[in-house]
Order: sequence, then C-alpha cells, then structure tokens
Amino acid sequence: MTPNERLSINQATIKYAPLREALRVTADAGITSIGLWRDSVEAASLPEAARLLADSGLRFSSLCRGGFFTVPEGRARRAAMDDNRRAIEETAQLAAAGAAGSAAVLVMVAGGIPQGSKDLAGARAMVQDALGELAADAQAAGVTLALEPLHPMYASDRAVISTLKQALDLASPFSSSVVGVVVDTFHVWWDPELFEQVARAGAEGRIASYQVCDWKTPLAADVLLSRHYPGDGVIDFAAITHAVKAAGYAGDIEVELFNQDIWDTPSADAIARTIEGFEANVALHLGSLSGDARP
Amino acid sequence: MTPNERLSINQATIKYAPLREALRVTADAGITSIGLWRDSVEAASLPEAARLLADSGLRFSSLCRGGFFTVPEGRARRAAMDDNRRAIEETAQLAAAGAAGSAAVLVMVAGGIPQGSKDLAGARAMVQDALGELAADAQAAGVTLALEPLHPMYASDRAVISTLKQALDLASPFSSSVVGVVVDTFHVWWDPELFEQVARAGAEGRIASYQVCDWKTPLAADVLLSRHYPGDGVIDFAAITHAVKAAGYAGDIEVELFNQDIWDTPSADAIARTIEGFEANVALHLGSLSGDARP
Repeated sequence: MTPNERLSINQATIKYAPLREALRVTADAGITSIGLWRDSVEAASLPEAARLLADSGLRFSSLCRGGFFTVPEGRARRAAMDDNRRAIEETAQLAAAGAAGSAAVLVMVAGGIPQGSKDLAGARAMVQDALGELAADAQAAGVTLALEPLHPMYASDRAVISTLKQALDLASPFSSSVVGVVVDTFHVWWDPELFEQVARAGAEGRIASYQVCDWKTPLAADVLLSRHYPGDGVIDFAAITHAVKAAGYAGDIEVELFNQDIWDTPSADAIARTIEGFEANVALHLGSLSGDARP
Repeated sequence: MTPNERLSINQATIKYAPLREALRVTADAGITSIGLWRDSVEAASLPEAARLLADSGLRFSSLCRGGFFTVPEGRARRAAMDDNRRAIEETAQLAAAGAAGSAAVLVMVAGGIPQGSKDLAGARAMVQDALGELAADAQAAGVTLALEPLHPMYASDRAVISTLKQALDLASPFSSSVVGVVVDTFHVWWDPELFEQVARAGAEGRIASYQVCDWKTPLAADVLLSRHYPGDGVIDFAAITHAVKAAGYAGDIEVELFNQDIWDTPSADAIARTIEGFEANVALHLGSLSGDARP
C-alpha cells in the first residue's frame, strides 16, 4: 500500500529507533514526511541530523518540542528561554534541510504548575509572557511556535494549556505565522467546543499541525503512554478530519504514539500498523472538500 | 476539633462501612451531614435506610447517583429510566428523613459513549433527551437532578459531560429547582472557564452541590481512584471556595474520596483526616463574604 502523501511519522512512534534508522524505516515504508524529537537530533548533532534528513529525501513536519515555560523568573527560567531559542534555531535548520513542503514548526508544550505552587492562573500567565519573549526570535528564524493544548489530565504536571480555545486566546496577540496551534485528536477529542474552535483556528490561519492518534480505556497505568493507532479507540476521525480540512489545513498529518506496546514492536511493523490505521481512519476523509462532517 | 457545620461526608469516602456504621462514625466525629450511595441504601432497604438516617440526626446532602443515560432507545434505556425514577423517589424519601436542612439532590453522572460507538455528540444528545423525560418526575418529587460534569479523562467510558459550561447548557431548558449542577473540584479545577461558569451557575441558581477533594499526580493506575484529601494536591481551594460562595451557594459541602489507600484506612481515621483537610483548606474560606479570591 502506498501511504497517503500527507502522512508523517512522528518519531515518538518509533521512540527506540535512532535518527538514522527512523529516517530509513519511514522512507522504506513509502512515507514522505517525518516529525523529529530534539533528543534524537541532539544525539546525532544538529548538522549531522540535518544532513541525514536531507539525504533521506523526507519532508520535515515539526520538531518536538519547546515550551515548559512555567518556571518563575530567575536562572531556571533564563535557561528555559535559552533552550527554546536553540529549539527555534534547530527547527529552522531542519525545515531547510527537509524536502520541499517541509514545515518550520516547533511544537510547544506549556509546562505544568511549578512545584509547590497551586497558582494555575499564574502558571498560565508565565506561558503568555514566554511567548511574548520568544516571538521575535521565532519570527526572525521563520519558525512557527505551535502551542499544543494537552488533555486536562496533564494540566498539573505537564501543560497548563488544556483547550484549543485557550491556546488560540494565548496566540491571539501574535501573527499567525509566529504563533499557531496543534490540533492533536488525543488531547482535544472530548472538548464540547472542539468544532467551533477548529473552525476559529482555521479562520485565524493558526492550525500549524494536525496530529492523530486514538483514545481508549482503560488508560495505561502511566497515562502518558495511553495513545493508540487511529481506529483502535473511540475518536471520530471522520468528523475531526473533515473539520480540520474544512478549516483549511493542508499540511502533513503526524501520527504520534506514546505506547509501550508499540515501542516494543519492531519499528517497521509499528509503521506498517500506523499506515493501516491512518489509511482506514484518516486518509479516507482527505479526498474531497465536500462532506464536511461537522456534527 | 468541632468540624465546620457545612462539612458533609460523602459515603464513598468510607466505602466499606455499611450504612449503619457510616452514619455512626460520621455523627461520632461531630459531623452533621452525610451524602449516601444507592447500593448502601438498597442493601439496607429504603425504609430501613430512611429510619437509620432519621435516628442518626444527620442531614442528608445528596444521593449518588442517577444518570448513565447514554443508552440507545430500547429495553436497556427503558430500564435505565425506570432506575432513575426509583433514584428520584429514594432521594425524596431520604431528604424527608434527614434532619432539617437536608437537600433533595440526586447526583447525575451522564454515562459514556455507548459500546462500539464513536458518536460523542449523539451520546450527549441522549443525556438531553433523558433529562427531558425525567424532569416531570423530579419536579413532582421535589428533587433536584444535579448534573455532574466529570473530568475529561472519563469522557469515553463514564461521563460525556465534561465541563460546567456544558452541564449548564444542558440544564438551561429546565427550572433550576429541577435541574442543577454539581461543582466537584477534582473534575473542574483545570477548566480555563471555571470561575466564569461558577458565577454563571450561581446567577442561574443551579449550584446544587459543592464537592471537594484534591488532584495529585502521578494519577493512580486506576484513574477512578485518584482523589485525595483537600490540601494533599494542587487544587486552589481558596479561590474555588470563594467563587462558589460568591455565587451564592450556602449548602453542605461534601468530601468524596475514591482512593484505595483511604478505603484501607479505618473509617474513623479517614474521617478525622477528612476533617483536618477540610478545616485547613475549605472551611477557612467560608467565614466571611468579603475577599472573593477569583483570580
């Protein structure tokens, strides 16, 4: 099966594959795009990673990830800002090294409530402040900071940004080329305002990434590892994919799976299963612009 | 320590105590109110439960629970409706048996997506339909159906109603004495619109119950059992309690803890810890009407 041309493998799906292998198994499967993780890029060194990516012929769809902004002012916050500036630079270089159609998108995870604090509103304000500080760097580098709302079950320890509406509100002071949002089905499928906010994100030109994976219960004991192949859970990919498409998003679509069972699968097999799930549940709904299935 | 007079023990906190023991340990601790569970009431029989409650001298703050409405039309749905009618009747009788100040409140959990379905919007519509069907029964019995939005991590298998806004929207066609909402800190603390919606709930007269317990990570492997004593986690009870109070809620405040470690504690000890957590984190903010801490 030749995979749909918009499918991109997020490297987290094949977490144990070093960069060279990740690029190879992705390209060998006929997939034309990949989203990379910083640890893997840094393990190879940025210049070498860019060279390997260019040699692979793959597009680059995003770098995971910047953010973790919820640190009070001081040395730790300065270090976080510097690290985000490096991530912006890495994103720009990787996007330049990828094949035509690569996206200079840096996925941003907000960070949780600071240790010992109960000030959720204050943590959210730190995210706003950090965006204000990094926007000029992102703009200069031609990089879009893509704010990813995470499922509310991660609100305390990973991301104080929990809904698409909230991410769009935070993005609103900035140009859409500088601050966008990620629509990740796992994080937003439950949101009663999802379709309204996807339409808004499209109208504002802010959908910087569309990521797909499924939700199934019981959740894994480590709730971070509870993401499933599209089609294995309860998410209505038809409705959400139609909505994202109707909102004008035409970029790559990443499958990002944190799941110990999938990680324990040989990379090529995990990719084959990913293709199957993507074709049957997502690609099917990319074909024509008719049939917006927004409920 | 004499506990604050608004503290109510939700029976789930001392899950293994049969009704008679639950009433006794609650009253022995100087607490004046209790919220009951149907399984325990039915184990004793309703007339006997009402008699034991009356003898205890405790107020009755709610019955858990009705709902689980997300069943397609047919025999199973009819059975669910009949069961909800019985729960309404139980609520009315228990409220009449409780001490002065008892509340005829039936907590309603919506139910998840039907097995094999991916139609979240359809499941939500089933909840609306069920309320329409039960409202007359509730009104006739003088019972308030209290819709409880559950944390979005339960959206697929337990409650398709995930936010206070959504619960209030569902309640809006009905009189506030017939359909209200539950504000449970564990379920709503993360919501960016929490304070706005609490104020709205107050203005609409729909806060039928305020339940408090804390959120802490890592979540328990069974995410249903991840509720903690107030003060043991990250929830800002000062801000939320001030908001609920400013919204006009003056009823009992239940502590409802699903937590295996707490269940493995002798009931009297669990109640003593509950009182401590409640006094230090919630009761402290009930004193005066000044100082609305809405962020």
